[in-house]
Amino acid sequence: MEIKVVKRIMEANEQHAEVVRQRLNEAGVVALNVISAPGSGKTSLIECAIRELREELSVAVIEGDPDTTRDAERIARLDVPVVQVNTEGGCHLNATMVLRALDEIRRDGLRLLFIENVGNLVCPVVFDLGETHRVAVVSAAEGHDKPAKYPALFRTAQVTVLNKVDLIPYLDFDESQLISDVRKLNPTMPILRVSCRTGEGMAEWIGWLRQAVTTPSAVSVR
Amino acid sequence: MEIKVVKRIMEANEQHAEVVRQRLNEAGVVALNVISAPGSGKTSLIECAIRELREELSVAVIEGDPDTTRDAERIARLDVPVVQVNTEGGCHLNATMVLRALDEIRRDGLRLLFIENVGNLVCPVVFDLGETHRVAVVSAAEGHDKPAKYPALFRTAQVTVLNKVDLIPYLDFDESQLISDVRKLNPTMPILRVSCRTGEGMAEWIGWLRQAVTTPSAVSVR
Repeated sequence: MEIKVVKRIMEANEQHAEVVRQRLNEAGVVALNVISAPGSGKTSLIECAIRELREELSVAVIEGDPDTTRDAERIARLDVPVVQVNTEGGCHLNATMVLRALDEIRRDGLRLLFIENVGNLVCPVVFDLGETHRVAVVSAAEGHDKPAKYPALFRTAQVTVLNKVDLIPYLDFDESQLISDVRKLNPTMPILRVSCRTGEGMAEWIGWLRQAVTTPSAVSVR
Repeated sequence: MEIKVVKRIMEANEQHAEVVRQRLNEAGVVALNVISAPGSGKTSLIECAIRELREELSVAVIEGDPDTTRDAERIARLDVPVVQVNTEGGCHLNATMVLRALDEIRRDGLRLLFIENVGNLVCPVVFDLGETHRVAVVSAAEGHDKPAKYPALFRTAQVTVLNKVDLIPYLDFDESQLISDVRKLNPTMPILRVSCRTGEGMAEWIGWLRQAVTTPSAVSVR
């Protein structure tokens, strides 16, 4: 009985994910499901991307959080469409939530949709949101052992962003271990070293995003 | 039907949590359920505590992780009993897992049991493990907005440890905002500022632990 219920939840999610995917495809929108632990800098990475890209293409954001509208307020200050989804304690977004949020966003002319998931390295990984690509973010301050300890995300992502590299001098952080652990899980995935604070690596992040939008098939598709 | 299943899972957890609590009480063991986001430094905080306290009292550890035995290996190097629980992708420990792990630990003479939960600010919060106290850990590198965005943990914890305070000079971190947000959720909970790297605040952390073991009722009991 428990297995049946779980199966039904996952089936409902798959159905809604397919509807999301279809609507995005029809409108020519590339959607990125951004997943990380809490506080690894997802919102900052999205803010930087909006500042760089909003002149050349139309961007929108869906923000997932258990509580508050703080992230949506940060994005709204950049004057792009944003919808906050509060999961009310829930530990991940699901495709039903994204489908509803999508109704609030004008898709006509939209090219890039960021879906910032709830900060969590486990639960968001098993829920397809109908996204084009999955972005794994890990902060250097979290330590080099996160990919090995939370392997599912890194197995299923199309890009890993190693954020807060400006803090590395102040950490006991073994970058080559992290890279080797990610490589074991996902041998060809790009790993981008960035710092939203200093701007280091931002060109690579923006470059990856541009390629994801212009030639989605060039970055490996699920 | 879904609600029934969830209710049954939670009832089973409550039953096992009560068995854990009873066994710990009989043996005079104080158990701490340590909860945080991935990479906020739970294992390091436990390592520091063991180094300081192992001469004066008997300590053991249950380590929860989706994968790997890395944390248990770190603890084993300190020569204290440790059991690794791999949740195989699961996003939290539950009381059934703790009950099984407890069978592997000699409780005779044991005074302090650390239960390091899976790195996750959401799911572990709803599962009672039969612990005496709940310890919330948040790293300064995660940003000051975490208590407001993930309020349930801070509402139910008996102490908050703000870790990695040595990084604050290199962060855009508003400590007074974090403290005020925690205070709103939990007006009387101690908030300890620590750095495992520099040793700052370690005396307060060890002091809180000593008090938790010697006079558990002095730190507020759930």
